[in-house]
Amino acid sequence: MASATKRIVLASRPVGEPKPSDFRLEETPIPQPGPGQVLLQTLWLSLDPYMRGRMSDAPSYAKPVGIGEVMEGGTVCRVVASQNGQFAPEDVVLAHTGWQTHALSDGKMLRKLDPQLRPLSYALGILGMPGMTAYAGLLEIGKPKPGETVVVAAASGAVGSLVGQIAKIKGARVVGVAGGADKCRHVKETLGFDECLDHRAPDLEGRLRAACPKGVDIYFENVGGAVFEAVFPQLNMFARVPICGLIAHYNATELPAGPNRVPQLMRAVLTKRLTVRGFIVWDFAHLLDDFLRDVSEWLKQGRLKYREDVVEGLDQAPRALIGLLRGENFGKVVVRVAPEAL
Amino acid sequence: MASATKRIVLASRPVGEPKPSDFRLEETPIPQPGPGQVLLQTLWLSLDPYMRGRMSDAPSYAKPVGIGEVMEGGTVCRVVASQNGQFAPEDVVLAHTGWQTHALSDGKMLRKLDPQLRPLSYALGILGMPGMTAYAGLLEIGKPKPGETVVVAAASGAVGSLVGQIAKIKGARVVGVAGGADKCRHVKETLGFDECLDHRAPDLEGRLRAACPKGVDIYFENVGGAVFEAVFPQLNMFARVPICGLIAHYNATELPAGPNRVPQLMRAVLTKRLTVRGFIVWDFAHLLDDFLRDVSEWLKQGRLKYREDVVEGLDQAPRALIGLLRGENFGKVVVRVAPEAL
Repeated sequence: MASATKRIVLASRPVGEPKPSDFRLEETPIPQPGPGQVLLQTLWLSLDPYMRGRMSDAPSYAKPVGIGEVMEGGTVCRVVASQNGQFAPEDVVLAHTGWQTHALSDGKMLRKLDPQLRPLSYALGILGMPGMTAYAGLLEIGKPKPGETVVVAAASGAVGSLVGQIAKIKGARVVGVAGGADKCRHVKETLGFDECLDHRAPDLEGRLRAACPKGVDIYFENVGGAVFEAVFPQLNMFARVPICGLIAHYNATELPAGPNRVPQLMRAVLTKRLTVRGFIVWDFAHLLDDFLRDVSEWLKQGRLKYREDVVEGLDQAPRALIGLLRGENFGKVVVRVAPEAL
Repeated sequence: MASATKRIVLASRPVGEPKPSDFRLEETPIPQPGPGQVLLQTLWLSLDPYMRGRMSDAPSYAKPVGIGEVMEGGTVCRVVASQNGQFAPEDVVLAHTGWQTHALSDGKMLRKLDPQLRPLSYALGILGMPGMTAYAGLLEIGKPKPGETVVVAAASGAVGSLVGQIAKIKGARVVGVAGGADKCRHVKETLGFDECLDHRAPDLEGRLRAACPKGVDIYFENVGGAVFEAVFPQLNMFARVPICGLIAHYNATELPAGPNRVPQLMRAVLTKRLTVRGFIVWDFAHLLDDFLRDVSEWLKQGRLKYREDVVEGLDQAPRALIGLLRGENFGKVVVRVAPEAL
């Protein structure tokens, strides 16, 4: 076992795209748990688009990470030492201990994981926050009906890939949008979407229209920008637009040039009687048991495919987050901080 | 009884604000009812903002009025002659016969009114389409809870005045926005809103912030434009924005100058988890009985005040609609086409 904790702190608030120098790697001695505490070793760290928001101090739904503080993030950890009666060494837990190799916890925010789950990283993806985001947003806001058309942005990503597959299970026609031919092929051939369009190729709007001959009933939004603009005119009467992310905007330093299209958007909301609703996963915390039951079952039945993009080593996390915000990842990004088996 | 029907047809599609020359008054002989038909005489014609939409051929939720066709509109009519067993002369009905003194009907779209209702024009306002718009949009989308803050645009108008009064009945704090000191005084003193702000005076956003110290939980939108821009930054987490109209945009011929604020709007929808939903009254047709029961009861109890802006004579309708779109009316606009009592 290492003798020092490595951790990555926020060195400065990024302007636009984060730079490697906005992060700093630090080492400190491994702490010892006090009464009621456990010492955790991080096995897996999840990287997710929301982290860009935490690096900024613009008002949002969560507090920003302070300068010099450890970067926030969901983790799967092993209990190394415990002075807390609820946890024993070798327990595996879901935690939110951030970008560091070790952390102390009072146990309150930990959830024990089934030690048989392999890989354990699934608890950060398809069986974790991104999976629950897809499940709850699609079913509670999108409410897909058989025969409806669902469009999913970032279709090869952690959330989008599950949104589309669940929509297929519910009987919808599903059209994904992704960046590049490889991702589109994966979405169509492996994930089983009806169609997947490359947003980097010309005339996305025209290709979308061809792929959605009956218009769009649900647009699951986690991207914004040009994809949103291409989909919006094709929404049907009473369409639903759950919004869980806007990755295309996160690095923006200014608003796009005019005209101001807000009146056009509002007119469409009115005349088409759209429902546009933002959410974060914890708004639907009451669905956690349903989600775990349904998605575990679908996984077992082979009805869901899931792809991870594994990054090796904590020190690679900054580079990987920068790439994620550029769409360079292919699948759910997880950082292997330490091997699952000792 | 007159020997000719007067009717006002759409002469040309307006560009921007409608002009008197976009309308044409015509006279034709009064028709006689054939088998199954009734001949109706118009007593009251409702003028409403949505009519601007029908004059345009931009895609919307309803077909536009054709050039040379009678302008559309809700009416209260008296049955003059009947060859339909369900209606007898002197019956009073709610109809949608448009801007004309007489019309034939097969009876299918008519609803008999309580002949004791006085004035009968209430069936076009507080007990009609605008009233139901207020009732359904506020209760089904807005869902006000006691102690929440509701902001209502066009607060002295047909819809806004009722939205605010129902929100008060439901225990909310209610802040109206209206054009001019007279309307604001009426909204506060007669309708009983907690506050009413003049959107023509400077710094609407600052005054709104002062009037809504706990932020805004529901913004009932029927205006758009500058009022929307002032309210939007003050929406609370999980705020609801029912949209039933955007009168400030109806005469617009181009989009406002940039920057394009759509990304800013979407970011707020996401981070505040807003629900923005367009609707028209008939989306909630199943609530008609509830609406008539509740609003009739509240009226009887003196808990609702209602102000009409009565225009005398069909030939004044074009001028009155142009004024309505400018906000020159004060209360629900109805045209007295013929006296209620013969």
